[in-house]
Amino acid sequence: MTATPPKNDRFLRALRREPVDRTPVWLMRQAGRYLPEYRATRAAAGSFLGMAKNPELACEVTLQPLRRFPLDAAILFSDILTVPDAMGLGLYFVEGEGPKFERPVRTHEDIAKLAVPDMDRDLRYVTDAVRTIRRELDNAVPLIGFSGSPWTLACYMIEGGGSENFSKVKALALNDPAAMHKLLDVVSDAVIAYLDAQRQAGAQALQVFDTWGGVLSPSMYREFSLRYLKKIAQALPRGAEKAPLILFGKGNGAYLEELADTGAEGVGIDWTVGLGDAARRTGGKVALQGNLDPVTLYAQPEAIRREVGRALDDYAQGNGGSREGHVFNLGHGMSPDMSPDHVAALVAAVHELSAR
Amino acid sequence: MTATPPKNDRFLRALRREPVDRTPVWLMRQAGRYLPEYRATRAAAGSFLGMAKNPELACEVTLQPLRRFPLDAAILFSDILTVPDAMGLGLYFVEGEGPKFERPVRTHEDIAKLAVPDMDRDLRYVTDAVRTIRRELDNAVPLIGFSGSPWTLACYMIEGGGSENFSKVKALALNDPAAMHKLLDVVSDAVIAYLDAQRQAGAQALQVFDTWGGVLSPSMYREFSLRYLKKIAQALPRGAEKAPLILFGKGNGAYLEELADTGAEGVGIDWTVGLGDAARRTGGKVALQGNLDPVTLYAQPEAIRREVGRALDDYAQGNGGSREGHVFNLGHGMSPDMSPDHVAALVAAVHELSAR
Repeated sequence: MTATPPKNDRFLRALRREPVDRTPVWLMRQAGRYLPEYRATRAAAGSFLGMAKNPELACEVTLQPLRRFPLDAAILFSDILTVPDAMGLGLYFVEGEGPKFERPVRTHEDIAKLAVPDMDRDLRYVTDAVRTIRRELDNAVPLIGFSGSPWTLACYMIEGGGSENFSKVKALALNDPAAMHKLLDVVSDAVIAYLDAQRQAGAQALQVFDTWGGVLSPSMYREFSLRYLKKIAQALPRGAEKAPLILFGKGNGAYLEELADTGAEGVGIDWTVGLGDAARRTGGKVALQGNLDPVTLYAQPEAIRREVGRALDDYAQGNGGSREGHVFNLGHGMSPDMSPDHVAALVAAVHELSAR
Repeated sequence: MTATPPKNDRFLRALRREPVDRTPVWLMRQAGRYLPEYRATRAAAGSFLGMAKNPELACEVTLQPLRRFPLDAAILFSDILTVPDAMGLGLYFVEGEGPKFERPVRTHEDIAKLAVPDMDRDLRYVTDAVRTIRRELDNAVPLIGFSGSPWTLACYMIEGGGSENFSKVKALALNDPAAMHKLLDVVSDAVIAYLDAQRQAGAQALQVFDTWGGVLSPSMYREFSLRYLKKIAQALPRGAEKAPLILFGKGNGAYLEELADTGAEGVGIDWTVGLGDAARRTGGKVALQGNLDPVTLYAQPEAIRREVGRALDDYAQGNGGSREGHVFNLGHGMSPDMSPDHVAALVAAVHELSAR
């Protein structure tokens, strides 16, 4: 891909902690069911996976929010569970129940059979989508590629779907840590290959979603989640070739110092941490991404604007008075019943209130 | 009630940070569906609320786990939502869906109508249960009374039941903080009266469950949850009359220093905080209660024993080498499919591994 910087490079500059004219903003799950045009595309595609596995449709829904809002980055439309699906577990969706696997990992034999998928054969639809989106974006804003974290993928692979208390995956980690590490090793190798394939196809930044790291105790988090986040950050290419890496984790607030030392360029945080405290604790080692409570989008536009202002100012206060190194985002993904008008109010507030 | 200390006073001594022969242990939701005798009593009672509102049956299920395990405290069998029920909201339960209110708080008028219930009339069944349990316990171990926290009660009162994202209660707090404070003020007055009525009826310690404080951003936590926890801790009687107060909160790990300064004697923590870190951060100001991940009970007894040992040692390391001031507990409540045999292994491990 071309190394020409995008016309709007605020997001990439913020990840390098360089000065920006305004704080860049994108929103987790910015392409989604809250947009009527998304619902129309999905209805035409017939299913979520049918849409995600079709590069043209994935491109279309990736671009939809950018046509409405002056967002500073696009994120590939895909699912965090594509890697275990490509490992043969059989991803499917039940309406209203979230993702499930037809063949969850249950035995030592299941673990022994796991292998890194062939990116060109098994995940070609993803890299094709990245190439298609880059072409259509025409370098207007950068494109973010992503993956689930090894621990988060392991949760779904072992539970077979979502879980209230993660009893199966935690019991495996407690009863048979060696088996758990064997699984996490192959999954993290697959994640590394997957992220690098997205980079080679044109993704200009990469994000790892550690959605379920925060359900662990500190000692288990360090052993079963953080260790593999660090492995990923260390294994991805360095230097001019490198796409900046953001480690997002729900409930990662206790581990910001350690995440800032992994080698990643950015750390994404949820709304239960103060941005100012997070900036002080990470001391300029990484950019910070976040962290408005997504539920703020249900409040009135004046309240949204006030909370955006608070978050921007809190970050700056913790960052020596500077807005550098901050990517504005929600602390978690958007929900289908949120209002596009409120999203517009949020994006405008970020740009207006952060303008120098 | 008699001021004679219970025969087993480890729990009360630990809350005063006095030396104990073994670390005391009790388990949140120790009376519950994982016990066949509980299921039998509940089947005979016909419903959860029928059981909770009958002092003899509430006493029976309170005592059941103590007949099986050498637990160091009993906790009143009741529900965290008795106070809003007594305020006229109409608590009911739908099998598999958790608690709901027939008349949730929706308008300013609904808030204006809220009043502190008459403890003798509207919550007499609770104080009767406390008296009955104290009589049947015959001072073997102390009895803990409890309430939901004002914020947690407000969540259910406004959402009308459980919630995935607490959008209604958070939107009210963001759009109309004055209305939210008006509600929280009357609810906290009710909680104070309720806890003190339990103390007068014989409860020897009190716990506030702030189950949902951790879903808030730090600024909202301090404004809408912590402020009212402190109000409760400050309002309850002091000195010889006082029953020690434990503030438990899921997701309260970022606020331990502030919770230790509320005036409460104990802080209960979930499993996402290290006990050693918690002890260092609170510096002996309070006792700490917790914090094994309840899911550990699904692991094998050897793994349970290892994790109990880790937690005990972690606490002692953060507490200057001493086990004083630690009440062993889970980091959250038990689940119906847990094994009584594994509970026995946990309780035995706490007592054996902490013995001097």
